[in-house]
Amino acid sequence: MLDNNFYKRLLFLQETDKAKEVFRQNYLADGTRRENDAEHMWHFALTAMTLYPYAKKKVDLDRVIKMAILHDIIEVYSGDTYAYDEEAKKSQHAREMEACEKIFGLLPGDQGEEMKALFLEFEAMETDDALFAAACDRFQPFMLNLSSGGKSWLEHEVYADQIIERMQPIRTEMPEVFEYIETNIAEAKAKGLLK
Amino acid sequence: MLDNNFYKRLLFLQETDKAKEVFRQNYLADGTRRENDAEHMWHFALTAMTLYPYAKKKVDLDRVIKMAILHDIIEVYSGDTYAYDEEAKKSQHAREMEACEKIFGLLPGDQGEEMKALFLEFEAMETDDALFAAACDRFQPFMLNLSSGGKSWLEHEVYADQIIERMQPIRTEMPEVFEYIETNIAEAKAKGLLK
Repeated sequence: MLDNNFYKRLLFLQETDKAKEVFRQNYLADGTRRENDAEHMWHFALTAMTLYPYAKKKVDLDRVIKMAILHDIIEVYSGDTYAYDEEAKKSQHAREMEACEKIFGLLPGDQGEEMKALFLEFEAMETDDALFAAACDRFQPFMLNLSSGGKSWLEHEVYADQIIERMQPIRTEMPEVFEYIETNIAEAKAKGLLK
Repeated sequence: MLDNNFYKRLLFLQETDKAKEVFRQNYLADGTRRENDAEHMWHFALTAMTLYPYAKKKVDLDRVIKMAILHDIIEVYSGDTYAYDEEAKKSQHAREMEACEKIFGLLPGDQGEEMKALFLEFEAMETDDALFAAACDRFQPFMLNLSSGGKSWLEHEVYADQIIERMQPIRTEMPEVFEYIETNIAEAKAKGLLK
């Protein structure tokens, strides 16, 4: 017999479907439309699998992939906050913690706690796994922003220095890959895609 | 210095972005539009994490999640084949194998081979990990089809017996969950959503 826990899990899966309708600021590679959270979580997980050979520290890839799958789920309740919107970022933490309790609270106790712990570890950016995850989370939209001709950078008048700062986890966790980031930021600035 | 392998990995990540524009037959839970492959791969991975407690056999969840993240990537070249389109399914295997060589062939040798092996294991549906993955891959759109009022079933005039057959991995790998499937298929048939 199916117990109440099954229906809790079902509701969680149904609610998280809404991540497909939370839109981010960055565009798809071809620039046709903005990317949504579900697509980003998948592509971030794939980025982690693909760029894992560049991890400088010993990283548990399986945990990083789970962080990727979970890290933006809270946005079905809190909405997306643009990385370069300093005003919205002030209230971001409080909004996200409330959403975190709400979404993971749909699951049976232990399972909800386990996923929440992984999400909070990712957010805190202190462990090696979370730092590598952060590096992949930043690489993926950077790559798409370049492919789409810096469309979202232009729309939001982003400064090269803001990007450099946001890409720091790539510098520390995948130093080789940071070379690609630095070169392309310099080029994007020269082309006027970044201020 | 970044080597050629980095640029191979970058191209793979750029090409796989196209999975966000390969549309499936099933709709989102709210019925507003069809789901794309990237969204499905993410939601399937999350389904595996969520329904893992119902796995009847000993399953390596980390491998199942990786299968989820990879399993429809080939469709950026082969397109989606509807599970109940018997005509298209005849040429499916050949189209998919060609696409498989092409997409995983973008990666450096070992890494491409490793991902390809995981994809082929999933396709073969023989190991316990692949069977549990298949069960989750079938549960996720079933749930969305129910939420969206059987929209894609109606459009394609699907028979209840076809669904029952397709849901067999759920019967064997998550027997408790199959109860939910059976009950809902019977109800959908009674309501005229299935033939």
